[in-house]
Amino acid sequence: MKQNCVAVFGVGLIGGSFALAVRAAGIANRVVGIDSNRIAADRAWALGLVDAVTDDVEQAAHEADFFFVAAPVAQTGSILASLAPHLDPDSVVTDAGSTKGDVVTAARRVLGAKLGQFVPGHPIAGREQHGPDAALPELFRDRRVILTPIFENPAETVARVRGIWQALGARVSTLDVAQHDKVLAAVSHLPHMLAYALVAHLADSPDALLKFELAGAGFGDFTRIAASSPEMWRDIALANREALIEELDRYASALSHLRSLVAGADGAALEELFRRASTRRMQWPLDRSR
Amino acid sequence: MKQNCVAVFGVGLIGGSFALAVRAAGIANRVVGIDSNRIAADRAWALGLVDAVTDDVEQAAHEADFFFVAAPVAQTGSILASLAPHLDPDSVVTDAGSTKGDVVTAARRVLGAKLGQFVPGHPIAGREQHGPDAALPELFRDRRVILTPIFENPAETVARVRGIWQALGARVSTLDVAQHDKVLAAVSHLPHMLAYALVAHLADSPDALLKFELAGAGFGDFTRIAASSPEMWRDIALANREALIEELDRYASALSHLRSLVAGADGAALEELFRRASTRRMQWPLDRSR
Repeated sequence: MKQNCVAVFGVGLIGGSFALAVRAAGIANRVVGIDSNRIAADRAWALGLVDAVTDDVEQAAHEADFFFVAAPVAQTGSILASLAPHLDPDSVVTDAGSTKGDVVTAARRVLGAKLGQFVPGHPIAGREQHGPDAALPELFRDRRVILTPIFENPAETVARVRGIWQALGARVSTLDVAQHDKVLAAVSHLPHMLAYALVAHLADSPDALLKFELAGAGFGDFTRIAASSPEMWRDIALANREALIEELDRYASALSHLRSLVAGADGAALEELFRRASTRRMQWPLDRSR
Repeated sequence: MKQNCVAVFGVGLIGGSFALAVRAAGIANRVVGIDSNRIAADRAWALGLVDAVTDDVEQAAHEADFFFVAAPVAQTGSILASLAPHLDPDSVVTDAGSTKGDVVTAARRVLGAKLGQFVPGHPIAGREQHGPDAALPELFRDRRVILTPIFENPAETVARVRGIWQALGARVSTLDVAQHDKVLAAVSHLPHMLAYALVAHLADSPDALLKFELAGAGFGDFTRIAASSPEMWRDIALANREALIEELDRYASALSHLRSLVAGADGAALEELFRRASTRRMQWPLDRSR
């Protein structure tokens, strides 16, 4: 690595944790942070997540040869565009976007001949806390990172990105771009929409205060993701619109079926549905560790 | 108390925890467990949750003068009916049912002149684990217990039930029966339906295994309640059918509104909705401690 330096675009939860982790793992001895949010950048520096913050991409590209984009996905295009002219042939870029179709489209638009240097990625390591203060050096340990390599990526470029994630303790899989976006629409984007919708729905009701007072621990778990970053999730909902709408529609049908079982007082079918879900959910930790 | 003895109908998570807690608090020095599920009863005894198990209600009523019904709500009527003939005038009964309208209707049907001795209650202390093995002596500490007293309850009877819960560290509120069922439909029953529906929906999809493999911690929190007892939740869904359907319909409208914002790519309105939910959710722990 050029001067053992990594540059991180976006120094919130994911970017800040990556900065801490690559230094802890000895992959970098210097991390430069770039963030359009000056308050977040200053905070990341004050917390010691990064060695320096700058808004001079050319300067950052002069120092670093590994770039990690961890900003809301709608910013990926302009970040890559700002980086492209300064990107040396040996440098590699990856990202942390929760959607990959839009990110790859943006990369194709702005990276030109350097497209192969960008390996799209997605660490599945969100938390409801966000911003630099939520960063943790161990955030990626035993978490899954999905890479969605594109045709233009040389095998050794993908291997380099994979190797860095593995050095941080992550379990790396690869997936096709479109498949990634469909699967994540179902297991991540849809649940976030459902949780946001529930909390907004309850907040709008006339006896909202009483409801929130009497809500228990199960409600707390169920709605934890509704505290996630509104800006980040706005971008994800828009970026993965098609797959998300498909999942929302399928889920609405499933819910309408459940409603018909309740309305028809079909206890046996309800119990069967609940049992299927409950058995599947209890088995889930095993799926995850596969 | 007659011989400082409490009888518990249903020795799973809630009943078993109550048994442990009343002994730990010195409220009882003997707890008798009654459970139609013989395996659960034996397990509760083997774990030391109760001092004895029996299916002889008359014998239990001879020993105890405080009765706690912690069985799936559909069994409340037959449990109270079996107890009624043996209930001494000084004895008090309360329950842990998540729905109160159906429980009060059942009590009115079977308790006759002894109706005033039954104080309907609901400790908001569920966990996704269930059965005797999940029981914890501290389950009710700092948790809310809602009592929904009925016209026939003498004030001192309500006070006795309240006092026992307070001695276990719970924070006791009272609520009107119908209001309880409406509020709980919104903050508890609806979320359980949404979580069950999501896991069943995903389990039914062709690439279910991949989806469960790639699901992250947020999914885990969101779906934790989908591991809850199918039998218990079948009873709740049926017992609180009307209020639940109303909530399901309101939620379906809220979700359909969100869908229209995604379909129309209305980023500003999506962000505003997410921000409202996120702000409300972050504030929630304060509501709870009120």
